[in-house]
Amino acid sequence: METRDEELILRLREVLAQAPPGAAELEELARVDPADLAAAARQLEDGQTVLLLKSMPEDVSAEVLAHLDEDVREPVLELLTPREIADVVEEMDSDDAADVLSELEEDKAGEVVDLLGAEDREEMARLLAFPEDSAGGIMQLEVVAVRDHRNVARTEQKIRELYGEVKEDFYYVYVVDRDQRLVGRIPLPRLILAKPETSVRDIMEDTPWAQAEMDQQEVAQLFQKYDILSLPVVDREHHLIGRITVDDIVDVIQEEAEEDYASLAGTGEEEFLEPSVLRRAAIRLPWLVTGLAGGVLSALVLSRFEANLRDVIALAFFVPVITAMGGNVAIQSSAVMVRGLATGEIDARDAISRLAREVGVSVITGVVCAALIFTVAWLWSGDFRLGTVVGASMMCVVLISTSVGALVPLALDRAHIDPALATGPFVTTSNDILGILIYLSLATWLFSTP
Amino acid sequence: METRDEELILRLREVLAQAPPGAAELEELARVDPADLAAAARQLEDGQTVLLLKSMPEDVSAEVLAHLDEDVREPVLELLTPREIADVVEEMDSDDAADVLSELEEDKAGEVVDLLGAEDREEMARLLAFPEDSAGGIMQLEVVAVRDHRNVARTEQKIRELYGEVKEDFYYVYVVDRDQRLVGRIPLPRLILAKPETSVRDIMEDTPWAQAEMDQQEVAQLFQKYDILSLPVVDREHHLIGRITVDDIVDVIQEEAEEDYASLAGTGEEEFLEPSVLRRAAIRLPWLVTGLAGGVLSALVLSRFEANLRDVIALAFFVPVITAMGGNVAIQSSAVMVRGLATGEIDARDAISRLAREVGVSVITGVVCAALIFTVAWLWSGDFRLGTVVGASMMCVVLISTSVGALVPLALDRAHIDPALATGPFVTTSNDILGILIYLSLATWLFSTP
Repeated sequence: METRDEELILRLREVLAQAPPGAAELEELARVDPADLAAAARQLEDGQTVLLLKSMPEDVSAEVLAHLDEDVREPVLELLTPREIADVVEEMDSDDAADVLSELEEDKAGEVVDLLGAEDREEMARLLAFPEDSAGGIMQLEVVAVRDHRNVARTEQKIRELYGEVKEDFYYVYVVDRDQRLVGRIPLPRLILAKPETSVRDIMEDTPWAQAEMDQQEVAQLFQKYDILSLPVVDREHHLIGRITVDDIVDVIQEEAEEDYASLAGTGEEEFLEPSVLRRAAIRLPWLVTGLAGGVLSALVLSRFEANLRDVIALAFFVPVITAMGGNVAIQSSAVMVRGLATGEIDARDAISRLAREVGVSVITGVVCAALIFTVAWLWSGDFRLGTVVGASMMCVVLISTSVGALVPLALDRAHIDPALATGPFVTTSNDILGILIYLSLATWLFSTP
Repeated sequence: METRDEELILRLREVLAQAPPGAAELEELARVDPADLAAAARQLEDGQTVLLLKSMPEDVSAEVLAHLDEDVREPVLELLTPREIADVVEEMDSDDAADVLSELEEDKAGEVVDLLGAEDREEMARLLAFPEDSAGGIMQLEVVAVRDHRNVARTEQKIRELYGEVKEDFYYVYVVDRDQRLVGRIPLPRLILAKPETSVRDIMEDTPWAQAEMDQQEVAQLFQKYDILSLPVVDREHHLIGRITVDDIVDVIQEEAEEDYASLAGTGEEEFLEPSVLRRAAIRLPWLVTGLAGGVLSALVLSRFEANLRDVIALAFFVPVITAMGGNVAIQSSAVMVRGLATGEIDARDAISRLAREVGVSVITGVVCAALIFTVAWLWSGDFRLGTVVGASMMCVVLISTSVGALVPLALDRAHIDPALATGPFVTTSNDILGILIYLSLATWLFSTP
């Protein structure tokens, strides 16, 4: 593939360099898969991409614009007039069109909407009314639906009449009753393989569905559970109002995973596509400054124990290992919970048993780590008490940090806050401080007792 | 949904408790979506699930078994005889069948294969020959292909003849030439909407394809780029040998993301579905022990500087913040690289520019963090030199750790090793030690100079 991409990029630069680009060359480019053109656009200057969009037939431009990554699309949209955007948007699937509009500054989006036909305008209003991460927010209004009383021959004919013009990317024909209520679906292959006189009712099957308000993560879980290619979306009265296609769900799954990954890494998921060094730094700094503040607090705690540290300087040597391990185990247990909640593999029902399980794990890992560090500290310093302090603190730190690490995501989830925050800087730094406190308190107690 | 699941679980327990289960009840259960039965099985005892599989019609059992998560499926397979497994496997899609076989102990798998029909046996051998994470390893052999010289009417008829029996989950009809070489595809909707007399050549379109050896992550990138529902797989001579469906790709994307997430969290991705507390602990311990070893090394380094610490005990107070920040910035830059490489958004071509960008980011974040900690340390201790040491070390640590954090994944990728290892315990602990070394060396140098 690589080489083919390279060639396409060169070809594009070449053709777009001519003013005006040759008709023959443009026709040739119009036959390239829009996804390839969109991928190549990443390597072009924004001006060239704009020229490409203006020179392609509108349906092709629509496809290309729909395939552009957000970070490439935004500057390009800024260079297009509302009129030009409106012409392309009218060719787009409603969900892609809504995405584009939501990326424009408010007033410009308004101008574009005003330029749309009455029907499109009304559709956009309907779609943009749903929260971005709800089933309604990611659905498209283009859906192929037939009545339940027909037979296969009539149905196929109806489909040709009604949908001969629409983009040809439907896999299920949804079946509705007189009042447009969803009653089932027919997979296209079954329709083709069925005898013409068969009635729709005999070959239709139940279909999972999503209410427009459902969260996109739950929607993704439905796709994964049922291995479906598209999911019908219904309103509260179960009227069929749209559908979600699997290619959008693939993006949702990627997006949700990136978000959790980013907060575990201590940055924002928006950074992954951010070209500007300055903005990247800005995204990371909040995490780092929180960490810094935590570090200063640790320093304060340490200073409170200055006397002990002076008496037994070796105590200081083990501060890093105590804090590091506290952080490590907390991250492990938080991460397991966060992913479990994200994939729906953990839910409220078994939260308690999961918590118990984490405590169980922490006992085992705690004993192992404590035994190891006790031995090392004892043999090294020849001071049994030091070994005891370090070992015992390690045990406490692992137990507490693991439990806290597991508890916080569950608590956040219960409070309808994103559990991934638990793997953020706040929780992790608090763990460091907690660790030092336990360690030095134990030390003071043990060393002050003769 | 929740409540519906609950009801199903209760119903299953009830029906399976009867010996033998009533025919009527079983028929009713056989009409439930196999995906729902598989989900419910998570809450059943293994024995009950086995009974369910034995009591359902084989095609239903095949679907249920295919939908079971690996951790639920393995114990169930152990309770089934080779004969029983073979009967179900024969009903499965080839890719699911291969998955099941690969989960059995070798000798049992052998017995099952021997019980299969000659054709199935040969198919399994062919599929299992490919690496698990290659296009060939995740493809299925069931694919609907037609010759390029026919017209639409003949083609639809052919499909009815040839594929009337196969599971009805195809979306594209692939087009091959006389020698079975892939030449294009026809989306089913287009076939339905086309006039009967149209020739296949006139409505077929180009299709992306994967060679059997291609890595599954690249395959996933093709699906995301082209928004396709299935991808044809070809051998070196471009013969059509199978296809990959999008529902399997959804799992691949999830899986790859989980792996990266797990190694960032310091555990194995296999833990996410591991019920046993003991095994969970076993998965985490390698990470923790490595961290422990790193901690001991830090302690050693600190002890080398015992004299300085005694003179200026305050130096010890800032050890945690230095190590913590080193770890934080390293993780940030590694993570950005790892995800970029995983999604194909970064490739060899722009590795250098990405590295430069990270250095740029580290300069900004370094200056900010250094300035802050310098001020705090200075004002607090009233010792300008201490402030300078802490600030300067912070600057160096951020610069070096960020660069190392960004470099390692790129290097691993270049060496065809999983870049995610960079976010593992080894790299992160080395960062801690490096930080302490820089900090205390600077300290010695500055405090020893009058």
